[in-house]
Amino acid sequence: MRIALAQYNYHIGNFDYNVQKIIEGIEKAKAQQAELVVFAELSVCGYPSGDFLEFNDYIQKCHKAVEQIARHCNGIAAIVGAPVRNTQPKGKPLFNAAFLLENQQIAQVCLKGLLPNYDIFDEYRYFEPASTFHVVEFKGKRIALTICEDLWNLNDNPLYVQNPMDELEKQGADFMINIAASPFSWDHGSERRSILSQNARKYKMPLFYVNQVGAQTELIFDGSSMVFNDQGEVVHELKRFEEELLVVHLGEVIQSRGSQSAPHNDLDNKIPNIYRALVLGIKDYFGKMGFSKAILGLSGGIDSAVTMALAAEALGAENVLGVLMPGQFSSDHSVADALALARNLGCPHYTIPIGQTALTFEENLHPWFKGLPFNVAEENIQARTRAVYLMALSNKFGHVLLNTSNKSEAAVGYGTLYGDMCGGLSVLGDVYKTDVFQLARYINRSREIIPENTIVKPPSAELRPDQKDSDSLPEYDILDEVLFQYIEKRKGPDELISMGFSKNLTDRILKLVNTSEYKRYQTAPILRVSAKAFGMGRKMPIVAKYLG
Amino acid sequence: MRIALAQYNYHIGNFDYNVQKIIEGIEKAKAQQAELVVFAELSVCGYPSGDFLEFNDYIQKCHKAVEQIARHCNGIAAIVGAPVRNTQPKGKPLFNAAFLLENQQIAQVCLKGLLPNYDIFDEYRYFEPASTFHVVEFKGKRIALTICEDLWNLNDNPLYVQNPMDELEKQGADFMINIAASPFSWDHGSERRSILSQNARKYKMPLFYVNQVGAQTELIFDGSSMVFNDQGEVVHELKRFEEELLVVHLGEVIQSRGSQSAPHNDLDNKIPNIYRALVLGIKDYFGKMGFSKAILGLSGGIDSAVTMALAAEALGAENVLGVLMPGQFSSDHSVADALALARNLGCPHYTIPIGQTALTFEENLHPWFKGLPFNVAEENIQARTRAVYLMALSNKFGHVLLNTSNKSEAAVGYGTLYGDMCGGLSVLGDVYKTDVFQLARYINRSREIIPENTIVKPPSAELRPDQKDSDSLPEYDILDEVLFQYIEKRKGPDELISMGFSKNLTDRILKLVNTSEYKRYQTAPILRVSAKAFGMGRKMPIVAKYLG
Repeated sequence: MRIALAQYNYHIGNFDYNVQKIIEGIEKAKAQQAELVVFAELSVCGYPSGDFLEFNDYIQKCHKAVEQIARHCNGIAAIVGAPVRNTQPKGKPLFNAAFLLENQQIAQVCLKGLLPNYDIFDEYRYFEPASTFHVVEFKGKRIALTICEDLWNLNDNPLYVQNPMDELEKQGADFMINIAASPFSWDHGSERRSILSQNARKYKMPLFYVNQVGAQTELIFDGSSMVFNDQGEVVHELKRFEEELLVVHLGEVIQSRGSQSAPHNDLDNKIPNIYRALVLGIKDYFGKMGFSKAILGLSGGIDSAVTMALAAEALGAENVLGVLMPGQFSSDHSVADALALARNLGCPHYTIPIGQTALTFEENLHPWFKGLPFNVAEENIQARTRAVYLMALSNKFGHVLLNTSNKSEAAVGYGTLYGDMCGGLSVLGDVYKTDVFQLARYINRSREIIPENTIVKPPSAELRPDQKDSDSLPEYDILDEVLFQYIEKRKGPDELISMGFSKNLTDRILKLVNTSEYKRYQTAPILRVSAKAFGMGRKMPIVAKYLG
Repeated sequence: MRIALAQYNYHIGNFDYNVQKIIEGIEKAKAQQAELVVFAELSVCGYPSGDFLEFNDYIQKCHKAVEQIARHCNGIAAIVGAPVRNTQPKGKPLFNAAFLLENQQIAQVCLKGLLPNYDIFDEYRYFEPASTFHVVEFKGKRIALTICEDLWNLNDNPLYVQNPMDELEKQGADFMINIAASPFSWDHGSERRSILSQNARKYKMPLFYVNQVGAQTELIFDGSSMVFNDQGEVVHELKRFEEELLVVHLGEVIQSRGSQSAPHNDLDNKIPNIYRALVLGIKDYFGKMGFSKAILGLSGGIDSAVTMALAAEALGAENVLGVLMPGQFSSDHSVADALALARNLGCPHYTIPIGQTALTFEENLHPWFKGLPFNVAEENIQARTRAVYLMALSNKFGHVLLNTSNKSEAAVGYGTLYGDMCGGLSVLGDVYKTDVFQLARYINRSREIIPENTIVKPPSAELRPDQKDSDSLPEYDILDEVLFQYIEKRKGPDELISMGFSKNLTDRILKLVNTSEYKRYQTAPILRVSAKAFGMGRKMPIVAKYLG
């Protein structure tokens, strides 16, 4: 049996686009003599569809789309993902389903049993978990067809009581297919491959795993679809961060036992994977929103430099406009470094000095500010003046403003709301400052794109004379380690202190993080590359007093 | 038996504060000869605690707080709410629990069985639903002790398979206690009272219902705790939007059958209830965040006028600073109306004309803008210039900026990101424009606070000559009806058309709503007063193409 894995990039709610793409996949698979072509979880509507799933109209459009796709399943069968109504009187109104389409009809429907409801996942908001599971019959083969999380219980996941594959195994199956929507994080690739491999070994069956690829706002799906033999060896692995359709012989998979595993995607190389993920994240945000041009402020610092390099890779250098906005406290090297960056990348750039505008604000505020010392008010006027210029250009010419804040800054609230925290998309908001430096080195791996001086000079917001980030923040290597343990690992103050961080430092950092929640609430969606990003996967109350 | 209902206002994560408050409640109840005092759901840590519940440290602090409270239960028992660890090997790591504290110890623990996971609720993110339920014994009485949603299945709620009260009834109980964290929405009060009354009738038992009161960021809890007799008649009803401790004789409740129901809170009077909810929402946001002063821009329009009146009521007129920022296209009446408002309320006010500043921006942009027509770029420069002034004053003097956008504007994206969409808290973001007019009339019920001209003049953003909202939007009475059906009732395009709205109008409005998701993502938390507010209870993908 020839099975095609269709690792495609869908667009949420864009039924015409998704159906067209799936039909093209069917035709392409058919042309390569595949008997079955497999698409990802909720491929028909896109994942995650959010509260659109609460609209009858949306569910009807899903059903119509499935029927439309089925009509193209002539001489080939297809598996697609879509929601289906729960017709029982009890439970949530929908199931998350996999449809086997055969002979131009819906032949069988399989329902997801394990619904993730943590971090960025909230499937139990919409879906009822299935409690019965049935092997799918297709051309004399018995297929254990499951959906994503269904394979994430090897009997030891405390979140789930049931285990769909245990049920399917009892019914006798020849091989497994799992359709997925499993997002990227830099430390997730190996874990995912390992869990899938363990499933193949445990059930002694080949496993065809089809993930979606592409970014949906903040979530980046990396693809990395795989085929395992019944010893858990990887026989095929599809590309990472790219669409691909691959036809695989089931027979060859079965016979591949004991063979060398197929060349793998490099899942563990953190920085290059983050780089590719962010490029895809930018590209899809713009493409799916219907924009082609980006704008950003160039400070001469490393965050805006790395953001510009990523955007240039994603959108083409000619589509990324850098705006230099030197102010009263900007150093000469800031301008020189920013110009060198734009030149190295080949990006257009404008220069708008902001001193006069900031002064106008201060003059008009003089009746109330007179006699008071320069403080964060005047600092923020500069950052916000820059935002007004950037947004004016954005509004006039149709650019999307890229936010350049990194995760360390976002964590401790080191940024000006409605100033440098502006932007339609946060590119580095899930990348700690220490990793931003590594990204810069990676970007410069074959030639100097980011000026060396941008990388080596001490980070500064340049909003007051001789300001350095280290004036008000711990050194980034220490700060980032505490933040990682607090945010990603959810270590509390006592645990952090027992790890060797001082109480003073711990209290200071945790207080900064918790009292900055109100700022993060108003920032752009952040491309997620870690196991715990700010945004939809981290829900913290603003009005709280904890460690504060 | 004398039972005290303690309807209190907690602060999330502020254990010292919550414990102190609960201990004071215990002492107060004891002084009134109560034998049992009942506090609300998760009263120990505050509801909703969000992802703080994922921290071991937080759960430990909850446990310590419960133990500390227990030591004060001497000669009186108390029921408090707190999370408790799930010690079973399977399931989510916590239960949502009610603790009976007696003789200075934890006497019994009851677990919540029905976990809401829709709209603003995501309890299944943290908690395992209990599947066994036990009647609590206290002083010879058998109490059916449940938590909030546990009573929201009278056997016909499709979301839940089990029914905790059916189990408890079988064990034989004398009366019911339900501890709750049930937020306000203008149409929810009667429904809640009716469901609770039906429970009392169905199980033929008195019911003591204790809700929390107070706002937690966007959620406003209205209290309205109640006591029902076994015929479902309301015997006592605590205040709405206020703390109260009331001691009730169980014997008198039992004997109250067939008596006239106690005077009720006015649950159905939409506008006065929204008014009180918003005042409480503002008050608690400021109080719990540690701020006392608000600032807002005064345009002379109705949204800023209503916002200022609400803020003055919540914080005191002297603590609400209005800033008039007339621009090139501001009309004379705008300034006059704004001044009259500030005078009527007794609020301080500053005037900062923005024309010169906006001109400075435009002049510096001239190299790129020259020859291009005036458009949204220049309009937004004005709105953003105002935001810079407001935030500068906020930063200098410690005011929190109030956002004045209404729900109609927020829905269709009629507002400037980083301009008039700025603010730490959105006061009217869940109030449609037509209801803002009614709020204005209500505010003026005994004297003219909001100038009549502000109410009767056609709404305008005044960002271009002779601009009116109706130039680019449908009339608000029609717009609001479509928005209500789409947002609150989740009617799709076909359903809206079948209700009599034209296809042209429907498509136009739905497209505006769906393509404005990126703007709403970056706005302040919105005080929730409806069944479906923008914010945490409405999760829509930004990068989507549906009805677009």
